Amino acid sequence: MHRPKVDELYTHAAIRLAAKGLYRVTRNNPRVGCILVKNGRVIGRGAHLQDGGAHAEVQALATASEDPTGATAYVSLEPCCIEGRTPPCTSALISAGIQRVVVGELDPNAEVNGSGVRELRDASISVTVLGLAEARSLNPGFHKRMTLARPYIRVKSGMSLDGRVAMENGESQWITSSDARQDVQRLRARSGAIVTGINTILNDDPKLTVRDARFGTSSPMRVVLDTHGQIPPDAELFRHPGEVVLVCNSSVTLPPNSIKWEHDNDQADLDSVHERLAEAGVNEVLIEAGPTLTSSYLQTGLWDEFVFYVAPKILGSQARPVAQVKIDALCDAIDGTLQSIEEIGDDLRIVINNSESCV
Amino acid sequence: MHRPKVDELYTHAAIRLAAKGLYRVTRNNPRVGCILVKNGRVIGRGAHLQDGGAHAEVQALATASEDPTGATAYVSLEPCCIEGRTPPCTSALISAGIQRVVVGELDPNAEVNGSGVRELRDASISVTVLGLAEARSLNPGFHKRMTLARPYIRVKSGMSLDGRVAMENGESQWITSSDARQDVQRLRARSGAIVTGINTILNDDPKLTVRDARFGTSSPMRVVLDTHGQIPPDAELFRHPGEVVLVCNSSVTLPPNSIKWEHDNDQADLDSVHERLAEAGVNEVLIEAGPTLTSSYLQTGLWDEFVFYVAPKILGSQARPVAQVKIDALCDAIDGTLQSIEEIGDDLRIVINNSESCV
Repeated sequence: MHRPKVDELYTHAAIRLAAKGLYRVTRNNPRVGCILVKNGRVIGRGAHLQDGGAHAEVQALATASEDPTGATAYVSLEPCCIEGRTPPCTSALISAGIQRVVVGELDPNAEVNGSGVRELRDASISVTVLGLAEARSLNPGFHKRMTLARPYIRVKSGMSLDGRVAMENGESQWITSSDARQDVQRLRARSGAIVTGINTILNDDPKLTVRDARFGTSSPMRVVLDTHGQIPPDAELFRHPGEVVLVCNSSVTLPPNSIKWEHDNDQADLDSVHERLAEAGVNEVLIEAGPTLTSSYLQTGLWDEFVFYVAPKILGSQARPVAQVKIDALCDAIDGTLQSIEEIGDDLRIVINNSESCV
Repeated sequence: MHRPKVDELYTHAAIRLAAKGLYRVTRNNPRVGCILVKNGRVIGRGAHLQDGGAHAEVQALATASEDPTGATAYVSLEPCCIEGRTPPCTSALISAGIQRVVVGELDPNAEVNGSGVRELRDASISVTVLGLAEARSLNPGFHKRMTLARPYIRVKSGMSLDGRVAMENGESQWITSSDARQDVQRLRARSGAIVTGINTILNDDPKLTVRDARFGTSSPMRVVLDTHGQIPPDAELFRHPGEVVLVCNSSVTLPPNSIKWEHDNDQADLDSVHERLAEAGVNEVLIEAGPTLTSSYLQTGLWDEFVFYVAPKILGSQARPVAQVKIDALCDAIDGTLQSIEEIGDDLRIVINNSESCV
């Protein structure tokens, strides 16, 4: 087989391995996979499966079925050359006697970006960088955080075909089917944090946890925009394990089991909240909120991806709109690019990307 | 090969042949295909390709490559046993010495329904009826017209993801892409009539013709609901070949080159209009109208299929909604069943069927 073809095949296999970390690697780290090939046979496989756990390259080397000296390592992301919570992977590959490394994409982290490749080459290892879109799309949040110090923002809404999220009287349970609600578990599980508004807590008292056993048991950080400290101390949020962050005015007192992110303004500044989330190592954030906060995201343009669960029904012009946004001219419309459409039970899932987003 | 399997394969081939008439057979007749098989070889093919033209069976017999005596005829629809604009197909099959007939589905026309099969069996021809959904779905309008004396009603709208068809000031050109508008040519070409409201004529002055050469040159009947006779005599509609029907109050005078369907009420009664369309032999009707008439269809429930072209953009809560319909409770929502979703250029085409429709 022609070598570039072989390179792509094994790197895609490494990307598929990396995807095993989709619902487990949600803070600080990217999802990475590694495959070791020697004399045309796969002799080792590794994936990064837990924040702070062993990296994919180290896993692959540790579990290799034979001596990796002279092998080629296929890695979905450039091996790190920095000492983090684990030793640098470049050193591990060099000491193992790896002869060649094929990289799915460069690490967007400025401390690594190209330096990992250089360090390997300096050690006489041949390196090929493929720059595959598939490698990149595994880690949209890691990319945005490393380059812009902000997490990737995913907003979700359940609505009717005519764009309505609730009846005039507020009735909204349930517009979409249970399959659609079940699918939201995926979005939660891959996120490092969920952000909501205080009205959603007061109206629906949600848990905002991951309850699908396929995605493990740990839930993302739950962040409530609660300027005036209106959250009840017995909110469901507190009854389930995991961090609860309240973004509030510095003057308010809050339940003791919560983390306080203070601000001095009348209203939380979304961009500052995102900055703090990025500092906390959160790569992807899910916004599960009512029309007001959802509309704030649309209006500020601070969203990267919008996931619509659409029920094939019409709720009429009196019902509450998904976007409480005033736009005067067609040319000022909030523009999206279609990422995917899929049937979820009786409903549709339509994902669009922000055309203005710089990720 | 097992016979039922062979039967299905050839009948599906006959259905594919029938689909050649999708954009040509739009009045009075169903789309039908026929395949003749003798000694395991296809010896003839026919499709009904024009209203009033030769039927599929007759075409297949006339163009057969050898004597059809002893052959099996695979027909997407039960052969007709009545003298219409052409002689009955049952007689043609019997005189040709056909030994066996496999039928995709029974003809919904009460004058044929089962009688065609009976007549063939009386002539000692073995008949198998498969009842295939694919055969039925080719002719939704013919089915509805034959069983309910009404055409199949297909409503189309172009809108944003938040269900808006125009800005607050009325600006609406163009929300969806040119690909989506091009796709509407398909809907027009398969329809026997297009229905619109007088406001659409006064605002946009559309031609409402088929302009895509792939679909031939004849355009469907164009029907304008124009109670008070407001249509200008120089409307674009009149400048292009094809019937123009004006549904109006009996007191008004209309341009001489139009057909008048009178009513005595303040407003046209949609159901009566449909009844007249069915009498005119129209199987499928396309509604291309503004929010008012579109909403009338939604509110009366007199629609069978709704085709939404959805642009991945948000126009905001001030923009005009696709459905000017007042619904109080979620349980009263207008319910649809997802028929299909497809990407059309940058947009989506979402087709739903009326859950209340009895087609």
